[in-house]
Amino acid sequence: MVALLNPQRVIADLRELAALTSDENGAQRVAWTPTWAKARDWYRAKLAELPVEVEQDEAGNLWATLRGASSKALIMGSHLDSVPNGGWLDGCLGVLAGLEVLRRIAARGRPPVTVRLVDWADEEGARFGRSLFGSSAVAGRLNLEWVSRLADTDGVRLPDAVRTFGVNVETAEQARRQIANAGAYLEMHIEQGPVLESLSLPLGAVIGCYGIERHQLTFVGAAAHAGGFPMHLRRDAFLSAARFALAVREIARRCGGVGTNGRVRNVPDIPTAVAGECAITLDMRHMDAAQLQAMVNEARAASEAIAGEEGVSVAWRTIYQSPPQPFDAHLVDLCDAAIREVNGGVSHRMPSGPGHDAIEMAWAGVPTVMLFVQSLRGLSHNKEEDTRPEHLELAVRAFDRLADKAMAWLAA
Amino acid sequence: MVALLNPQRVIADLRELAALTSDENGAQRVAWTPTWAKARDWYRAKLAELPVEVEQDEAGNLWATLRGASSKALIMGSHLDSVPNGGWLDGCLGVLAGLEVLRRIAARGRPPVTVRLVDWADEEGARFGRSLFGSSAVAGRLNLEWVSRLADTDGVRLPDAVRTFGVNVETAEQARRQIANAGAYLEMHIEQGPVLESLSLPLGAVIGCYGIERHQLTFVGAAAHAGGFPMHLRRDAFLSAARFALAVREIARRCGGVGTNGRVRNVPDIPTAVAGECAITLDMRHMDAAQLQAMVNEARAASEAIAGEEGVSVAWRTIYQSPPQPFDAHLVDLCDAAIREVNGGVSHRMPSGPGHDAIEMAWAGVPTVMLFVQSLRGLSHNKEEDTRPEHLELAVRAFDRLADKAMAWLAA
Repeated sequence: MVALLNPQRVIADLRELAALTSDENGAQRVAWTPTWAKARDWYRAKLAELPVEVEQDEAGNLWATLRGASSKALIMGSHLDSVPNGGWLDGCLGVLAGLEVLRRIAARGRPPVTVRLVDWADEEGARFGRSLFGSSAVAGRLNLEWVSRLADTDGVRLPDAVRTFGVNVETAEQARRQIANAGAYLEMHIEQGPVLESLSLPLGAVIGCYGIERHQLTFVGAAAHAGGFPMHLRRDAFLSAARFALAVREIARRCGGVGTNGRVRNVPDIPTAVAGECAITLDMRHMDAAQLQAMVNEARAASEAIAGEEGVSVAWRTIYQSPPQPFDAHLVDLCDAAIREVNGGVSHRMPSGPGHDAIEMAWAGVPTVMLFVQSLRGLSHNKEEDTRPEHLELAVRAFDRLADKAMAWLAA
Repeated sequence: MVALLNPQRVIADLRELAALTSDENGAQRVAWTPTWAKARDWYRAKLAELPVEVEQDEAGNLWATLRGASSKALIMGSHLDSVPNGGWLDGCLGVLAGLEVLRRIAARGRPPVTVRLVDWADEEGARFGRSLFGSSAVAGRLNLEWVSRLADTDGVRLPDAVRTFGVNVETAEQARRQIANAGAYLEMHIEQGPVLESLSLPLGAVIGCYGIERHQLTFVGAAAHAGGFPMHLRRDAFLSAARFALAVREIARRCGGVGTNGRVRNVPDIPTAVAGECAITLDMRHMDAAQLQAMVNEARAASEAIAGEEGVSVAWRTIYQSPPQPFDAHLVDLCDAAIREVNGGVSHRMPSGPGHDAIEMAWAGVPTVMLFVQSLRGLSHNKEEDTRPEHLELAVRAFDRLADKAMAWLAA
């Protein structure tokens, strides 16, 4: 019996999972919580219908392995965990699409290469602030010292929380062995942005993930009474931050990247006082490392020029840096071809702005690609997140084609 | 015995009060607290040395009355209460300078008119958010309904707190009788701004208080992932607020007023998200009512133009409005003359940006003027607030001259 791929079953599975692990505010599958465990139990029951070996590794990742003629492995993966009040697609779409592809491959008998499906542990980092937990451990860059100090808002430490799920942070990086035979890593995900929708395209082949430069700037001027200080004697820190934010937009546009000032805080932050201090975050992203560096350099120069003109000081503090992570050129070609096959010859290559577990696989040297499916209005991380059913079905078909092409490539 | 005016005694009194009611963070004479009561007990002991009648009125204001030949009254006043972590001059300088002038007048025997010194209750509104409590009650515009609903951060209601100080909010406006015979109101205060210092002048005659328009604007765009949304598809509410703040500065400069955006709040206010919402406060002030209205109209037009260009919406909510309050032209002339007499012929006429109890007296129809003394670096409402001793002494001498001129005017 040769089972056919059934994309509608993926949607049915997604709805079943949502019904089991959501409330009126959305998905509640936060990693290292009982609801996440419930999701995984449900998922294990699905896996039990297939001729696969199931194993949780040292970092809490859940692996399903269909042995093939070769031990060389094609890995498909994504994550079941969600942010609090999350959507019905972010993460679990990739796992359940992978599950459907695995069903289809398993039904055909022994594949030429080993095929594995991984449900990464704690992609979102929603509870402890450490995203990509499981995939980072497998990539060997978990940063044990930092992770061991993390605690949730109730004061529960990460090492204690993960221990109840059978994970010891001290030995988590032993999970590196999982990618010893990895030949390729494929991940399907919703776009979480508006690009495909704005182009009226259902699917995109992802060329890599943006590099990220995240900093906090603090402008310091002089607090002053809103009534008592004439305009020409003020040193208003907020106006410097306002000018900086507008400069960041121009820089990002000119360089073809993105720049965001998402958090802003005045001191004293009252209606009747000129801000003596203003702290503002800067998040800049670009696919090209040199362009990303140029953006940050320009932003720094702009902040200093503005500060000089406004008579305030400015200080920078780095929050986070991650270099651009290009995906494998050949796999991008295969993904592009798979999309064209199911979508009347039309595909689109695009970078990913958000981070994904795929970054960790690419960083670890596993040839990697992602396939994006359109997000309606670019929404994610809330219950309004959605994608048209016909696009979901098309995505499953393209992902299945991609898996076949990657298997053939690995077998060759 | 005719006592001479002793300006140094005012400084000694200020230091004594500071020692009694401050801690390492500054003055703690917040109205309706034990430290404020301690300040008033100390002040009552000073008054007890003078031939004056002392009375607390229905609104908690403390009056000292030196009966004169006429029942027509010259009133001097200010406030002993401070903000938390306040300075050593804001408010109490005016009371203790008035006390010194009262000593000098009392020592000369029965004055031609009745002379009164008032310590207004709760000028700052630091605990309940209602400034000018006592003077508003005397002016007959306390707004009982609003005041009765106020509570401090511990949930203590204003009516309950003031009751422990012998004040019943229901009957507080009976204190209006205090100004039945008022002929003039004089108030000395630190400038709380940098204007006099920037002009190298010690003293200024205040022509009135700025009108105030205070609003909150909320720009609503679309929250978006900082990585996933290209610049051209964003509707960033914070950038609209940033453009608005810069427009406000230009409008205020052009119109000769002041405009401040002191508080700003993004939603969701995280480094990795474009702000879907940004609430920003606007505080505009001008001495001229028509110019103030023009400023607000221009700001509103600017906010709508920016919102249109940025693809966001903007909504306005009024927080507070107060019309400009000019002081009495003749008293301003007398104040100007008094300053010139003690300062080598040099004076300066200026508006007040901050609000003062004098506004309430002027509003109630009492001929009113204020005398400002230079603030170092324009600082107030913190422990760094300061004024040179020689300027304080000069201010006391000018205020004494002003009191004499005002008495002569009332007696004539």
